[in-house]
This record gives sequence, C-alpha cells and structure tokens, in this order.
Amino acid sequence: MSDALDAYDSDNIFAKILRGQMTAHTVFEDAMTFAFMDIMPRADGHCLVIPKTPARNIFDASAEQLATCMLTVQLISRAARLAFAAEGITIQQFNERAGGQVVFHLHYHVLPRHAGVSLRPHTGQMEKTEILSANADKLRAALAKL
Amino acid sequence: MSDALDAYDSDNIFAKILRGQMTAHTVFEDAMTFAFMDIMPRADGHCLVIPKTPARNIFDASAEQLATCMLTVQLISRAARLAFAAEGITIQQFNERAGGQVVFHLHYHVLPRHAGVSLRPHTGQMEKTEILSANADKLRAALAKL
Repeated sequence: MSDALDAYDSDNIFAKILRGQMTAHTVFEDAMTFAFMDIMPRADGHCLVIPKTPARNIFDASAEQLATCMLTVQLISRAARLAFAAEGITIQQFNERAGGQVVFHLHYHVLPRHAGVSLRPHTGQMEKTEILSANADKLRAALAKL
Repeated sequence: MSDALDAYDSDNIFAKILRGQMTAHTVFEDAMTFAFMDIMPRADGHCLVIPKTPARNIFDASAEQLATCMLTVQLISRAARLAFAAEGITIQQFNERAGGQVVFHLHYHVLPRHAGVSLRPHTGQMEKTEILSANADKLRAALAKL
C-alpha cells in the first residue's frame, strides 16, 4: 500500500512509561534507549527494548533510533544468556497491526530460549509482579557482569 | 550459559552466496549488506538481510554490522510495503539453534504481512525459482521508487 502511515500517537502505553505515568520493571537505560520486562511474557525473561524518542515502528524510525536500539538489544541478549542460562535468543519486531504490532511505539522483543521449549502463546494473561521483578533483577545483575 | 559460543563457520550457505559459490535472488546490496529472497518463504516476498562480513549472530556482531543491517531491513520493509501492498512487516532474527537459527551467518527475516494471513509453517519446501525471481523483481522495482 502506498497510503501514508498513521502518525505517532503519544498516548500509547510505552510513551506513558517513558513519561513516568505508568510503571515498568526497568532493566536498562541509556541516553537513547530503555529496556523493561514484557508484562505478558512469551518466555521467561522476555524483555522489550524501545527508543526514548517517538517512533511508531520501522517505517518512520531514524537511523539513530535503529542503531541504538539494536545495541541495547545485543546487550540485553548477552545478559539474558547469562541471567537465564538461555541457549538461544529470538528477536521479534512487529510493524503495523497486520505485522503483529499492538503498541504503536517502536519496540524489539528479546526472548530467551531453551532447546525444545516453544514460545508461549499470547494469552493476554499478566505475569505476577514478583516474577517480573525477580527477572528484571537477574538481568540487571547479569548486565553488571558483562 | 556462560560457555563460549561456537566460532563463525565460513562454510555456511550465506557465506557461499556472498562468495558467489551459490546463487541467490538478489534484491539489494551496498558496501556492508546484502539482501536476497528466502528460498523457503513463510510469506510472499520473504526477504533476508545479512552483513557482507562474517558474524555468527547477535552475540558476536559488531555495532557497524547491526546498524547497517537495520538500515537495509528498513529499506526492504519500505519496499515490501509498496511491492506487495503489505499492510505490515514482521522482522525476526534468530540466534543459536534454540533461538531458531538454522544458518549461522547473522540474518534478519523481513516478512510482508496482510491482515488475517498467518505466516506459513517451515515446511522445508523450496519455492519455485520463477516466483522467487518475480518477487525479487518487484522488490527491486519498488526500491527504485523509494
């Protein structure tokens, strides 16, 4: 389709997290990026990486947003390998509703994987806060060792 | 796991494609990256983006490889939207066997999506050459219009 894409909507939940209007289990942040736990994890330790500045998805992202997010994705991937004894990492990045996107602020899913363990389906079920908090702690501890 | 990862193996099929020892349906290349059709597409127009230099996956990739690949992923995503009237794009990047990786040269899957159409399962079935070639043509034509 050659139609224009929808503009960035600053009412999305990740924008609210970035503004401190909603809480998140923070794992990492630097000048350009922010990483926090997915509250409906499809694997233990499922983490999200987003730019701190507005971008709807890959179609409107700047080169700087893409490059800095990927560096943070790499960092979180390395930390997850250590924190969860992950044998692999699956990265997913969804664009527009037909592409799987639900929250319209550019984000990368970092999914720690183990042999023979499938990703859990999207159930809409929220993980317990204490589990999300414990996994964020493990990732932060692993980051400190990298 | 804190074990060392396997080293890059230059006998992988993407390395052979880069050396011209195997053919591919080329979509795009620049100094650092190469894009070509996945021969077992999970969606029409399924394209792969790789760095021209060796990297096993996200764990050993350089900042330059990650940044330049993402720019090409963005370019192919924009072209696919135009070429296939894609309503969305799904990006996948698999690391290590447990993470879904089969070919051990860093690669990004760019999957054009349409509402209500699921990704096809991995069947191991190769797509017809004329279809891959036609889709590569469509992507190249769209790239020329961007």
